[in-house]
Amino acid sequence: MTKFGKRADMGLVELATEAGLGALNDAQNEEAKVDAVYVGNAASGQLCGMENLGPIVAERLGLLPCEAQRIETTTASGSCAIKQAYRDIAGGFLDRVLVVGAEKMTHLPTEDATKVLASSMTHPTGETVHGASMPALAAMFTRKYLDKFGLSTRYLALVAVKNHSNALKNPYAHLQKKITLEDALASPIVADPLRVTDCAPMTDGAAAILLQSKPPAESKAPVKVRGIEQSTDRQMFYQRAEEFSIGALKDASTKAFNVAGLKPNEIDVAELHDAFTVLEMVESEDIGFFSKGEAARALENGVTQIDGALPINTGGGLKARGHPLGATGVAQIVELTWQLRGEANERQVHDAKTALACNFGGLGNTVVVTILERS
Amino acid sequence: MTKFGKRADMGLVELATEAGLGALNDAQNEEAKVDAVYVGNAASGQLCGMENLGPIVAERLGLLPCEAQRIETTTASGSCAIKQAYRDIAGGFLDRVLVVGAEKMTHLPTEDATKVLASSMTHPTGETVHGASMPALAAMFTRKYLDKFGLSTRYLALVAVKNHSNALKNPYAHLQKKITLEDALASPIVADPLRVTDCAPMTDGAAAILLQSKPPAESKAPVKVRGIEQSTDRQMFYQRAEEFSIGALKDASTKAFNVAGLKPNEIDVAELHDAFTVLEMVESEDIGFFSKGEAARALENGVTQIDGALPINTGGGLKARGHPLGATGVAQIVELTWQLRGEANERQVHDAKTALACNFGGLGNTVVVTILERS
Repeated sequence: MTKFGKRADMGLVELATEAGLGALNDAQNEEAKVDAVYVGNAASGQLCGMENLGPIVAERLGLLPCEAQRIETTTASGSCAIKQAYRDIAGGFLDRVLVVGAEKMTHLPTEDATKVLASSMTHPTGETVHGASMPALAAMFTRKYLDKFGLSTRYLALVAVKNHSNALKNPYAHLQKKITLEDALASPIVADPLRVTDCAPMTDGAAAILLQSKPPAESKAPVKVRGIEQSTDRQMFYQRAEEFSIGALKDASTKAFNVAGLKPNEIDVAELHDAFTVLEMVESEDIGFFSKGEAARALENGVTQIDGALPINTGGGLKARGHPLGATGVAQIVELTWQLRGEANERQVHDAKTALACNFGGLGNTVVVTILERS
Repeated sequence: MTKFGKRADMGLVELATEAGLGALNDAQNEEAKVDAVYVGNAASGQLCGMENLGPIVAERLGLLPCEAQRIETTTASGSCAIKQAYRDIAGGFLDRVLVVGAEKMTHLPTEDATKVLASSMTHPTGETVHGASMPALAAMFTRKYLDKFGLSTRYLALVAVKNHSNALKNPYAHLQKKITLEDALASPIVADPLRVTDCAPMTDGAAAILLQSKPPAESKAPVKVRGIEQSTDRQMFYQRAEEFSIGALKDASTKAFNVAGLKPNEIDVAELHDAFTVLEMVESEDIGFFSKGEAARALENGVTQIDGALPINTGGGLKARGHPLGATGVAQIVELTWQLRGEANERQVHDAKTALACNFGGLGNTVVVTILERS
């Protein structure tokens, strides 16, 4: 993956190309034929004035005449691209697919970018037209969740402090700044009760992985996809069946565990979609890592720290690694791959053999759950 | 499919929904579970201020919690969505996938829409920034092709006259106007030598098909996908290996014929991507229906008319049915399905058993070739 951050030095295609070349290089596979390039990208048309990224990136990488396409489910675009690559290989249609997730957004004024995010993630006639932004919607959900389980915003701050701390050990992360609980609780309000430290930043960046039918001859500890499953729920929260859970996550994770033949307590490390701090807590419950309402206690007890029983967001999460929409789902898998290979350096989880990623489109409208295992 | 045209009466999501419901209804399958909705759309963000159409359309159709995503390769988006649906079913991952292609663009001033088309189909740093539009690029190619084979623009006009005539027999077509050779040759110049009648119009519309692993019990003459293959070439014409052919089309059609076990002379009816009239001629040669430079003679001799030996663009083509970018690849398959089922009424090709569709992204940067057969 590229360094995430404000990348005024590089364009969208250049970021995607750097990540793609990195993945090909890592696989020691520059010479082998790549059958397809699938690009996960949320909104390059509105953000960068260009569409059709699949062929553009494939051409820049010198991989023609391979198949190429873009897959879009807003912020779950990256993991949907991985899902398609996985199926096309497992189904016997292709042998080798390069997946690149990329987004560039910091060149726009924050207000303009926020509007594009709303057009990408809120319901067009039920939310967007009324001016609902993602932080506004997330704030309402956060308030309900905290109230239901009698929690203070201190728990949100604990997520931010942990993920900022992890990001400091990740040279690719956007935010490289240690913060204390006091810093978090004093940071400016974005949408009550969410503060700046509760929201993922606007970030540019790209990440890539090469999926293959078989590991290459001299592979570094190959990582295997055990299951990748997707589900969709209503876009508007008030129309969903559940108030304190993400229905599509429960559905997708149940399917993924079934396909993988694993249980939540058999996962060694996880990447969750903490676009807002509350989501890391809610997701860790809905996946079944903790009982409903118990994420706060696990957080307080250090269970989700790098040296805890179930490390979550070792790379810094969306919160501190940054959240370049279409790149996020791929960056999660890159982090987990490094963890499973034992290449995560200072932030290495001891002997991680299994891993889970949860990637959201919007506020859980789309959810993709991926389970990986070290071969 | 919906009526194609200037659909000021309906929004993008409403068009997609009408087409989707039509396909479900046609399959007599409203009650059966749909595993996924794949939406082909080129540029809804820039054109309509909304992204994330997969989940939005799936929700509107009442198909949740199915998988849902958008697939984008500019004007080949529709056929790429079909390709993914086909593979996910043939690979054993899903049983039933609804593919919806949709685009809405006529609400924008033509100049603004033309700019979006350029951002979607021309090369960002090699063409778009220099102000190259699609008609300008197509005009240069047309001029070269006509010159190479000693042809006059009269042959372009023959394509337009034929496709307008076919569209008059298709109630779903956008342009319902008979034109003569003289009309075509007198129509205003868009980009010399292309006239208005040589260019597909700006059109709104949607089309949908339901792909299933097995035909339902009481099926109307089921249509089978024999092969669907994709290839990609350089975006900029001057960098391509061939000057008078579309390399990605030759590659994709060769692969599709191999997979299908068929030859060009075994195809009974074809839908080609005539965004500009010259493309129908070039494509019919590159697929192998006619020798290089011989499309003009076939056209003159009526071979490609509805009652000819190889009817092309019976539904009116992009030229006269209209070209709602992401919908086009799906509309081609809808037309061929009607032909194979014997449901094409006034424009029915006698006893069509096999069919081929060619869908371009841009000027053949991406090409998808689909071969269908009546079961």
